[in-house]
Amino acid sequence: MLLKMRIQTKKYSLGLDFGTNSCRALIVDISDGRELATSVFPYPSGSDGVFIDKKEPNIARQHPKDYLIGMEKCVKTALKKAQKNEPEFDPEQVIGIGVDTTGSSPMPINAKGIPLCFLPEFEQDLNAMVWLWKDHSSHQEAKEITEIAREMRPQYLEKIGGVYSSEWFWSKVFHCKNAAPNVFESAHSWVEICDYLPAVLTGETRPGHLKRSICAAGHKAMYCEEWDGLPDKEFLRKLDPEMAKLKDRLYDRAQASDKPAGYLCLEWAEKLGLKKGIAVAVGAFDAHMGGVGAGVKEQTLVKILGTSTCDILIHSKEKGPLNIPGVCGIVDSSVIPGYYGIEAGQSAVGDIFLWFVEKLTPEKYGKTAPEKFKNLEKEASKQRPGEHGLVALDWNNGNRTILVDVRLSGLLVGQTLHTEPHEIYRALIEATAFGALTIINRIQKYDVSIKDIINCGGLAARNPFLMQIYADILGRPMKVSRSDQSPALGAALFGAVAAGKNTSGYLNVEQAQKKMTGIKKIFHPDPDNHKVYQELYQFYRKLHHAFGTLNWTGSLFDVMKDLIDLREIQRKEIHA
Amino acid sequence: MLLKMRIQTKKYSLGLDFGTNSCRALIVDISDGRELATSVFPYPSGSDGVFIDKKEPNIARQHPKDYLIGMEKCVKTALKKAQKNEPEFDPEQVIGIGVDTTGSSPMPINAKGIPLCFLPEFEQDLNAMVWLWKDHSSHQEAKEITEIAREMRPQYLEKIGGVYSSEWFWSKVFHCKNAAPNVFESAHSWVEICDYLPAVLTGETRPGHLKRSICAAGHKAMYCEEWDGLPDKEFLRKLDPEMAKLKDRLYDRAQASDKPAGYLCLEWAEKLGLKKGIAVAVGAFDAHMGGVGAGVKEQTLVKILGTSTCDILIHSKEKGPLNIPGVCGIVDSSVIPGYYGIEAGQSAVGDIFLWFVEKLTPEKYGKTAPEKFKNLEKEASKQRPGEHGLVALDWNNGNRTILVDVRLSGLLVGQTLHTEPHEIYRALIEATAFGALTIINRIQKYDVSIKDIINCGGLAARNPFLMQIYADILGRPMKVSRSDQSPALGAALFGAVAAGKNTSGYLNVEQAQKKMTGIKKIFHPDPDNHKVYQELYQFYRKLHHAFGTLNWTGSLFDVMKDLIDLREIQRKEIHA
Repeated sequence: MLLKMRIQTKKYSLGLDFGTNSCRALIVDISDGRELATSVFPYPSGSDGVFIDKKEPNIARQHPKDYLIGMEKCVKTALKKAQKNEPEFDPEQVIGIGVDTTGSSPMPINAKGIPLCFLPEFEQDLNAMVWLWKDHSSHQEAKEITEIAREMRPQYLEKIGGVYSSEWFWSKVFHCKNAAPNVFESAHSWVEICDYLPAVLTGETRPGHLKRSICAAGHKAMYCEEWDGLPDKEFLRKLDPEMAKLKDRLYDRAQASDKPAGYLCLEWAEKLGLKKGIAVAVGAFDAHMGGVGAGVKEQTLVKILGTSTCDILIHSKEKGPLNIPGVCGIVDSSVIPGYYGIEAGQSAVGDIFLWFVEKLTPEKYGKTAPEKFKNLEKEASKQRPGEHGLVALDWNNGNRTILVDVRLSGLLVGQTLHTEPHEIYRALIEATAFGALTIINRIQKYDVSIKDIINCGGLAARNPFLMQIYADILGRPMKVSRSDQSPALGAALFGAVAAGKNTSGYLNVEQAQKKMTGIKKIFHPDPDNHKVYQELYQFYRKLHHAFGTLNWTGSLFDVMKDLIDLREIQRKEIHA
Repeated sequence: MLLKMRIQTKKYSLGLDFGTNSCRALIVDISDGRELATSVFPYPSGSDGVFIDKKEPNIARQHPKDYLIGMEKCVKTALKKAQKNEPEFDPEQVIGIGVDTTGSSPMPINAKGIPLCFLPEFEQDLNAMVWLWKDHSSHQEAKEITEIAREMRPQYLEKIGGVYSSEWFWSKVFHCKNAAPNVFESAHSWVEICDYLPAVLTGETRPGHLKRSICAAGHKAMYCEEWDGLPDKEFLRKLDPEMAKLKDRLYDRAQASDKPAGYLCLEWAEKLGLKKGIAVAVGAFDAHMGGVGAGVKEQTLVKILGTSTCDILIHSKEKGPLNIPGVCGIVDSSVIPGYYGIEAGQSAVGDIFLWFVEKLTPEKYGKTAPEKFKNLEKEASKQRPGEHGLVALDWNNGNRTILVDVRLSGLLVGQTLHTEPHEIYRALIEATAFGALTIINRIQKYDVSIKDIINCGGLAARNPFLMQIYADILGRPMKVSRSDQSPALGAALFGAVAAGKNTSGYLNVEQAQKKMTGIKKIFHPDPDNHKVYQELYQFYRKLHHAFGTLNWTGSLFDVMKDLIDLREIQRKEIHA
């Protein structure tokens, strides 16, 4: 009887996470963050959900129907699993929904809020689909926006690291205007998918009515309370008069995710098998909600290590406005309301390893990619730092933080006729760790202290070899988030908070974090390895500055020789 | 009757070519260079004939017993084949023998001329074997020799490109003194294998009596008539008193290969099945005899393209002494008597491709190395220059000519997440061609004109894709030597000339070349490709100077961006 009462009073929240290749539903016990059930749905369209164009490798698009089909499918499956895992579970106990997505991934919609690519005339048109975060086709427009802002509105750039990116909202919309004027003209408005999907769940997708995410607006669309929202029309007119006109059809205010975007409509309640009227939190980006799900707080950096990496940090507003050059964005309340949310990141991390395994690793290391990864790690782990004599730059997909430059590329130096694949693999992992260190150093230089690092995402959960190298290179303990699906957990957490204190018991995000998040493992740095890596990092820094900055002067004459010296010292020690 | 007389008067010469992994015998009709029969013997010892040391990857040694077994075996087989191919052939018609080998590949011998490693006490001792050309263990000694020469005897360095190499005679002998003093003390003298093997055939291997090659002495041991032979004792004493004492047990004079080292002794005549007393030419290095076999003459550069590359050129002595900084060697009569022989080269060419195929090319391109090469070429040939967006340096084994620096390594820049193996393969081929262009530009800058380029060696004979890229990058027709075994043909040619005019009909090398050498194919440059490659070469040059020279100042900020620009232009053209 008592047990039954306890079970009946249990409450759950649903986290929906829309990634690059799949979406996921996660059902979480809001009292302790226990993950009751999860379900993943790989997007069926394009190549792993992404539409590409062979003539223009910068293009990456997505069709929103994949999200809608996926949302229905994976929620239903997760609910079934939950009931199987815990027979007492009742979908009626789900009290809130949170949604996180990739971004900036905007798409054009009509006045009714219907995506243009749902209309027959735009059915096959890539430009009418979602412009996925990693679409770089608008690099020319990004450059133009940066130049105009630098001249007219330098304050706009201060919050976003000094350079406007081709991955972001205005670049993409502007490139659509230039490259596909018919789509631009037919678009009444544009939405980030993190705004669109919660809106679909609430049944209100009309551009003037749906809620906009402060996370997307602030980090990607130069939205700031300081200048009363989006960039002013004078600035937009300088880009193009049509861009200024579009502003009226966008939005005035954006919201944080602790508040509801609305409440689950009947249509989607029936589709999903959930109770009508439960809270649907304002959406946000996966990294930001992932940061919350991993336990981000002041002085604790969360790294979401996946195909690319996002670094999430919050900082008290009491210390006044922040400006960290080269850091992707600093936005009020974008992570946790009441704090500056700081976002940094690396454009490719897991993607670089996957490239190397898929393209350049022979079958000697295994037949499948997982086997190859395993054996590369096995062989690489036998070596000491510097023993391979290599150093690489992690720019195969550009540099997002510090240099903010997509027109950079990969570099490998030090290879001989004896260099082995697992040595290059190790050098690539080290390159991404050096990239991470460069970001941390930059943030700390601007008086934002970092005492703790929590890692989450696929690489943190599954790759202890990589985590140990990160610990050795950063010279700090690397904590790993308890949840293997921190973004979905963060989304569920926001669903619970948005439901309100009366329903969930949580007044704010911090209260929910204390109960719902945690750490499962810590990797401690090896002091000897750290010492060698401090040396190796100097090579990385030199190459970083030489190839990445305009005014570098210096000599690279010693790079190859010093790498050989270090290699010889490390090899001798191992055989001694 | 007349036919029989003609056949009876036919004369043949035997060329013996001792390479890195095998030796070869070639029987040549001296009237027209027709190759009657050939036989190859792969060295049975070590790894493909090379002894290595896992603790010290710079070490590469060889056992001379492989040469002696191989010489007997492949001459006998070639003679059998010759008789099969042409029943009228009689081994008695062989009138001379020429020998070419790798080098500088010195070995220690005792006072009787017996290699130390043939003695029981040194049987397993790597330091008592042949120190193969590509052994780099003496880089410290090379540096010391260079420094002392720069101070005391700058003239010594002028003839060898300004830097004494770790691949050369004195570095190796000096390193033996330092690293294996017991071997050094037991060595009465040292011989290059190109001196030792002809000496074995003549039956006279005693250090004071065997003939020394001017090619080996001049290019690798700082021998020059100007200072009366080998370096003086004061200089050698500065290295080490024992090195000065060694000089007395080396040699005073060295000879060109148009003269006999001696005549075939009974023992070896019986072993090989040849006539006792035929001329055995003074030995020389494979590249130099290969240059002659391919038809080197004034203003005609011969490139021997193999695992590494040697460039051979001759220059009239009438124009006075030559000094081309960074060029491996300029030695009187080292290629053709009466001319300066000029040697330049690249430390790794085919070896870089083999490394890439063996280590980094997945089975998608084929199961075996030849299949992989074929498919890499097939895919790479579909691309336009610059379309891969890559540029590489060809320094995986250091840089032999221009920078003369073994402590350099490979570099690849421009890779993205889409870069394919065949694109890297193409970039590596291009890198070696850019290296070749850099050498040609340097030689021409010092007023040695190059009007014609003849290519020989395995890569020239078998890789039309590579030859076309070389033509496009160098902007010149690439001729290919008629013989696929130019070094052995050159050796046979010297065997004929050494036999004397009365026997062979040839007064000198040039006369023999006119009859015995030729061209079989010409690759013409594509002007459009050449134009793009002129742009790409600027990237190579910039990286070459930045990583390879001490006083470079400049900016690399544009390298990645410009490579991306070029890639985009070339891709658009292809899809236009």
